[in-house]
Amino acid sequence: MKNGRVRNIRVETISQIPIEQQRIEIVERKGIGHPDSMADGIAEAMSRALCKEYKRRFGFVLHHNTDETQIVAGKSKPKFGGGEVISPIYILLVGRATKEFDGESIPTDTVVLRAAREYIHENFPNLKDEYVVLDCRIGEGSTELKDVFTRKDKVPCANDTSFGVGYAPFSETERLVYHTERYIVGELRKSEPAIGEDVKVMGVRKDNEIELTIACAMVDAYVDDPHHYAQIKEEIRERVFEIAQEYTQRSVKVFVNTADSDGCYYLTVTGTSAEMGDDGSVGRGNRCNGLITPYRPMSMEATSGKNPINHVGKIYNILSNQIASDIASEVDGVEEVYIRLLSQIGKPIDEPLVADAQILPEKGADIDKVQREARDIIERWLPNITEIVDMLIAGKLRTF
Amino acid sequence: MKNGRVRNIRVETISQIPIEQQRIEIVERKGIGHPDSMADGIAEAMSRALCKEYKRRFGFVLHHNTDETQIVAGKSKPKFGGGEVISPIYILLVGRATKEFDGESIPTDTVVLRAAREYIHENFPNLKDEYVVLDCRIGEGSTELKDVFTRKDKVPCANDTSFGVGYAPFSETERLVYHTERYIVGELRKSEPAIGEDVKVMGVRKDNEIELTIACAMVDAYVDDPHHYAQIKEEIRERVFEIAQEYTQRSVKVFVNTADSDGCYYLTVTGTSAEMGDDGSVGRGNRCNGLITPYRPMSMEATSGKNPINHVGKIYNILSNQIASDIASEVDGVEEVYIRLLSQIGKPIDEPLVADAQILPEKGADIDKVQREARDIIERWLPNITEIVDMLIAGKLRTF
Amino acid sequence: MKNGRVRNIRVETISQIPIEQQRIEIVERKGIGHPDSMADGIAEAMSRALCKEYKRRFGFVLHHNTDETQIVAGKSKPKFGGGEVISPIYILLVGRATKEFDGESIPTDTVVLRAAREYIHENFPNLKDEYVVLDCRIGEGSTELKDVFTRKDKVPCANDTSFGVGYAPFSETERLVYHTERYIVGELRKSEPAIGEDVKVMGVRKDNEIELTIACAMVDAYVDDPHHYAQIKEEIRERVFEIAQEYTQRSVKVFVNTADSDGCYYLTVTGTSAEMGDDGSVGRGNRCNGLITPYRPMSMEATSGKNPINHVGKIYNILSNQIASDIASEVDGVEEVYIRLLSQIGKPIDEPLVADAQILPEKGADIDKVQREARDIIERWLPNITEIVDMLIAGKLRTF
Amino acid sequence: MKNGRVRNIRVETISQIPIEQQRIEIVERKGIGHPDSMADGIAEAMSRALCKEYKRRFGFVLHHNTDETQIVAGKSKPKFGGGEVISPIYILLVGRATKEFDGESIPTDTVVLRAAREYIHENFPNLKDEYVVLDCRIGEGSTELKDVFTRKDKVPCANDTSFGVGYAPFSETERLVYHTERYIVGELRKSEPAIGEDVKVMGVRKDNEIELTIACAMVDAYVDDPHHYAQIKEEIRERVFEIAQEYTQRSVKVFVNTADSDGCYYLTVTGTSAEMGDDGSVGRGNRCNGLITPYRPMSMEATSGKNPINHVGKIYNILSNQIASDIASEVDGVEEVYIRLLSQIGKPIDEPLVADAQILPEKGADIDKVQREARDIIERWLPNITEIVDMLIAGKLRTF
Repeated sequence: MKNGRVRNIRVETISQIPIEQQRIEIVERKGIGHPDSMADGIAEAMSRALCKEYKRRFGFVLHHNTDETQIVAGKSKPKFGGGEVISPIYILLVGRATKEFDGESIPTDTVVLRAAREYIHENFPNLKDEYVVLDCRIGEGSTELKDVFTRKDKVPCANDTSFGVGYAPFSETERLVYHTERYIVGELRKSEPAIGEDVKVMGVRKDNEIELTIACAMVDAYVDDPHHYAQIKEEIRERVFEIAQEYTQRSVKVFVNTADSDGCYYLTVTGTSAEMGDDGSVGRGNRCNGLITPYRPMSMEATSGKNPINHVGKIYNILSNQIASDIASEVDGVEEVYIRLLSQIGKPIDEPLVADAQILPEKGADIDKVQREARDIIERWLPNITEIVDMLIAGKLRTF
Repeated sequence: MKNGRVRNIRVETISQIPIEQQRIEIVERKGIGHPDSMADGIAEAMSRALCKEYKRRFGFVLHHNTDETQIVAGKSKPKFGGGEVISPIYILLVGRATKEFDGESIPTDTVVLRAAREYIHENFPNLKDEYVVLDCRIGEGSTELKDVFTRKDKVPCANDTSFGVGYAPFSETERLVYHTERYIVGELRKSEPAIGEDVKVMGVRKDNEIELTIACAMVDAYVDDPHHYAQIKEEIRERVFEIAQEYTQRSVKVFVNTADSDGCYYLTVTGTSAEMGDDGSVGRGNRCNGLITPYRPMSMEATSGKNPINHVGKIYNILSNQIASDIASEVDGVEEVYIRLLSQIGKPIDEPLVADAQILPEKGADIDKVQREARDIIERWLPNITEIVDMLIAGKLRTF
Repeated sequence: MKNGRVRNIRVETISQIPIEQQRIEIVERKGIGHPDSMADGIAEAMSRALCKEYKRRFGFVLHHNTDETQIVAGKSKPKFGGGEVISPIYILLVGRATKEFDGESIPTDTVVLRAAREYIHENFPNLKDEYVVLDCRIGEGSTELKDVFTRKDKVPCANDTSFGVGYAPFSETERLVYHTERYIVGELRKSEPAIGEDVKVMGVRKDNEIELTIACAMVDAYVDDPHHYAQIKEEIRERVFEIAQEYTQRSVKVFVNTADSDGCYYLTVTGTSAEMGDDGSVGRGNRCNGLITPYRPMSMEATSGKNPINHVGKIYNILSNQIASDIASEVDGVEEVYIRLLSQIGKPIDEPLVADAQILPEKGADIDKVQREARDIIERWLPNITEIVDMLIAGKLRTF
Repeated sequence: MKNGRVRNIRVETISQIPIEQQRIEIVERKGIGHPDSMADGIAEAMSRALCKEYKRRFGFVLHHNTDETQIVAGKSKPKFGGGEVISPIYILLVGRATKEFDGESIPTDTVVLRAAREYIHENFPNLKDEYVVLDCRIGEGSTELKDVFTRKDKVPCANDTSFGVGYAPFSETERLVYHTERYIVGELRKSEPAIGEDVKVMGVRKDNEIELTIACAMVDAYVDDPHHYAQIKEEIRERVFEIAQEYTQRSVKVFVNTADSDGCYYLTVTGTSAEMGDDGSVGRGNRCNGLITPYRPMSMEATSGKNPINHVGKIYNILSNQIASDIASEVDGVEEVYIRLLSQIGKPIDEPLVADAQILPEKGADIDKVQREARDIIERWLPNITEIVDMLIAGKLRTF
């Protein structure tokens, strides 16, 4: 207890085989154009826009959760040189927001529609307006939470009994998978417009061999023919193989669009498989660290779209990762650290029911020191938990 | 390798602190009336109905995935003695299905609409027809997969690179959480109609103390007044406390509807919070073992609604749990077992890229024997993987 | 002026060729199962249900207009002996209603959804629940009209500048067309279940010859084969021919399903063409007298679904027909009478801007007496205009 | 009969009081921003876009009818100086179109979505993208009509038994009402941006006095305060009064926004009442001559959005007006002319079941000559009926 606050911090060391020494590891990242990530991105853009609107009007954020966007795939006929979208992608913006406050109506529907459209324009250059139907069913929340959101002198109370999970540091395979997608969409696409936004990377490590399987949607207008398509695939393969050397000494094999077969290509009109047959939902893809890691603890909570004020399903997941990251980088002797935060509904969010750190120490580490320093970092973060809010509103923290 | 099939089975023992000896454990179960579980249940009912329809017409199941149902909360005014639903819950049935085969149209939309309605009728006695808008946007899938689905002599090929995770046995807390919800909704509700279907159970174990926090939606028509409400809460608390003794020797504390405060009750008209403010999606709640377990490995894949023929995101999750369960119960000396199956897209589903078993042996166990027998069980299951299909279609396996 | 009220009544005689002596006459009736009539029927059922709900709660009707139901056709595969509905009919309930009054929420959405479903159940026995998606977008009106609706001592004021038109009596052809549809759906269907609700009757009179063209949707489950189909068509033709003799001495020819051709039948699964390809809207079909009569004056106003308190687009159309009917039956020497009522927005509805009667007198009629008596009837109706409301709420007046 | 074609033309003279001599006349025009007209405009834009797309691909127009657009009003908070749209207008594009032809998919959904958006952009400068949700439910028609649409050597056959009605010339009041709206929105708005697109004009003539009642939506961003608002109203009143002198010698009174009352103004954010409380549908507003005229014969058929190839509900209404217009202007001695065309389903559209002209001759006119010349004009038009198609596709004919 510090400052009269009950933090319920528990730090313990654990003994298990470090991830790098386990024989198998599986890591996945769904790129920003994967339908699930699209849903995440739109949901978070909606929340950010609402936060800004509420702050502009009242000086503080009001209750909302927009973490349920549903993407219904369209229908398309891609072809080399440029095909067509036959039926649009249908995107239903779902969630709750405060629609009236102090007698003032807040245009939440038009705010989220604009935010969603802008997000699409910014991130999906090939998605024309007529390729998307943006619909909206935003209701009002169930509770009168005015006090939670408007009192500046009080830490908000948890909206629910919920938990967040984080760990650090990333394993080699995790870093590799994450940066592979970022490299392809963030860098390589600049010079190769055929690369779509829907790039899924699956990394499988068996002992010291890593296989990277990349599914990369190609934009048909920029691909002349099967030969050209093969060239682009090969270029992606080579370039990813090169940058992989920066992340690992292990043997790396790179596969691109392995599901292609004779006469069958991963060709799209828009750069995302949402145009044809792949639906998407918030919270079904990457965790808030950007990865899906079945050999690591994960939270089921969708982080994107939730309000950053009192929704512990969002805040605790992000905070767990921040804390883990700080411990891993600041404390000597930490091989791996796992943070789990459990809220108590109705209690201030800086007073979790459990703040649990499991540390796998390096050999020879000073256990006491490690535990003490880790605890300090947690105690440093909890009172400053609301910093997370500002970073989220400013879009400085990834949520998927 | 057996029968010419490459199973890629790896069995290894691991060394870690058994779950029961870890100091903290968190387990959650969202009951069948939680909006996320409603989405899961409807999605799976849709898939089962499509499977039956396809089999009735053609003798085999055709391609479909209905794992994207979106539930948009309604608006209600509950009150003691019986309130009202003001605006209906909007349920959008989303997914893909084969709509034509061999020149025959298949009424997939009306099949899933009927299935969804029947599921609601069977499970939600207080949800009148006018409280729900059932809408439907079922598209067609992207691929010509006819061969995958119709060849009876061939094992289907994986639709994607994906993984499943399972473990066994349940910890005490897990068993307790699972059965608490099942007891309240399955048993206690028979004599106490005020109990709704939306019962969420959160179990937190700190060392040898377990706190069960139950959020139980009450059906207002069966609750006379605050006093009556308090009585029912107390009854639930007492009864759960009693049955808890069957599952654990640890100290158990039971809390019911802790978010209640003066003049504020967890009262609903219909028994589910979807009537007011809580949206729901497929795959956001329980894993296919019925629980959310952040201290255990989990898969992000939504199990409910996926086709049981070649969607490894469904089959491998269920199979992993089946294998783990068999190993835990049949092999002596297994403290814990974790199964992970990784598919290779385009390869037969009985030939995973990795079939990985991590076994935490009991002290003094015969490691070799344990590993050998575990491997045998995996080798027994893989060739019989399609048994899972029939059990799923028959509704004999839970998916959430 | 009477009772201080300005009625603005003008009665004039006109000279024109009576309808029966005109060489050509065209009359149409869309039966209750025509998609436009379905929309009308649902819209009016919604309004009636809202009226009852408001009266039950507050003792008076509150502002609403539900005159915009949109029916989007489904997709079906009818066949002799029984086919299938592939995709459901989508029905969007649209309109405005008062959702809060005196601090009380009114469940307008669930009220109209229930009313629409009940209307469908009562009138369309072959439309299973899964053949229809009932969706709902009911907003709130733009104006604070509390006073208009709640003052019992005051006549409501007109919501708009609008007009109503009515005439009497029906011509022979009009009577014939109207009763032909009513006979087929109301009587003949009792003994012949193959007859659907979607029966459209077009009557064309050229001098003394009347051609009745009937398009009758057949319910496939009750039709065995083309031979049976032909039998039913012939039966309808014969029976209609018989009853036609009750309405006219003119020569009548009856044609049934003339668009049939080799291998092409008017076969449906549900009895309405809304199952396949025919959309429908409120106010696009029959006028409030049950007919479409291009040789007669008509109003464009949709009557169905509008509130019966102050929506002159509804009240004046119905009242015009009531007045015309009374004049035609009570006043001697009236060959034809045309009533037009024009409201002034904001003025009491019993004080129209114009109440215009055009009377075509019979030869030798006492013009003065006719005009005087006609005026009396109008003056009798205007102060009792609110009687229309009660009759409408009770469902005693047809609106389409 | 001419050219072997049966035209069924009947020309007769009638005797009735000419419209200008009737004591009462009521005429209404809903401007392009009225919700019903918006629906009409969008529906027709969709049809034009489909026609062009079909012609571009195949050289001819394919079957479609997009005459069922439904507009669901949004919610707004206008205020002097600029208010806000709270909830968007929901526009559901409904209809039927040919989605596949000769093995080629046609992107009908994206074509109509683009057309609708462009129509809105062009006509509603204040309607931002986020103020509108554009959704789309376009199905396929029920019939295989390939032959009807693709044979260039054959006149298309009527899709239905339906009729069209037209008359000429416009009365003074009709001309005045029509041009008043066109003047306000087409001219006056150029210099006064506060004028919205939703301008409804009602004209009532009593003997020689005409009252023009104008409801003009004001765009709040361009209106500073109540004083400014009053100024604009007065300006509209004055300017309309001025131009009225061009159309009539009768006494004219002009009223603008008469429903305004203390503190209540006709203020909008977007220029259309669809932003708040006023829904709209195709075919509920102006007839294809641009007016609603309850003292004239009218057709119930929605003209906008129907295919211009074989939908007689569209073609015959437009053709009737063209013919009437030509007769009125080319034939000497015609006071009024009424044209009614009745199709026979399945017969070529240039062979109507009835082509009926009723002519009210001027005093002293040469009846025989009038009838003969009128017949000639009809006989000239019928063989050239397909000219209407090209004019419609080119957007040269108004449909509302």
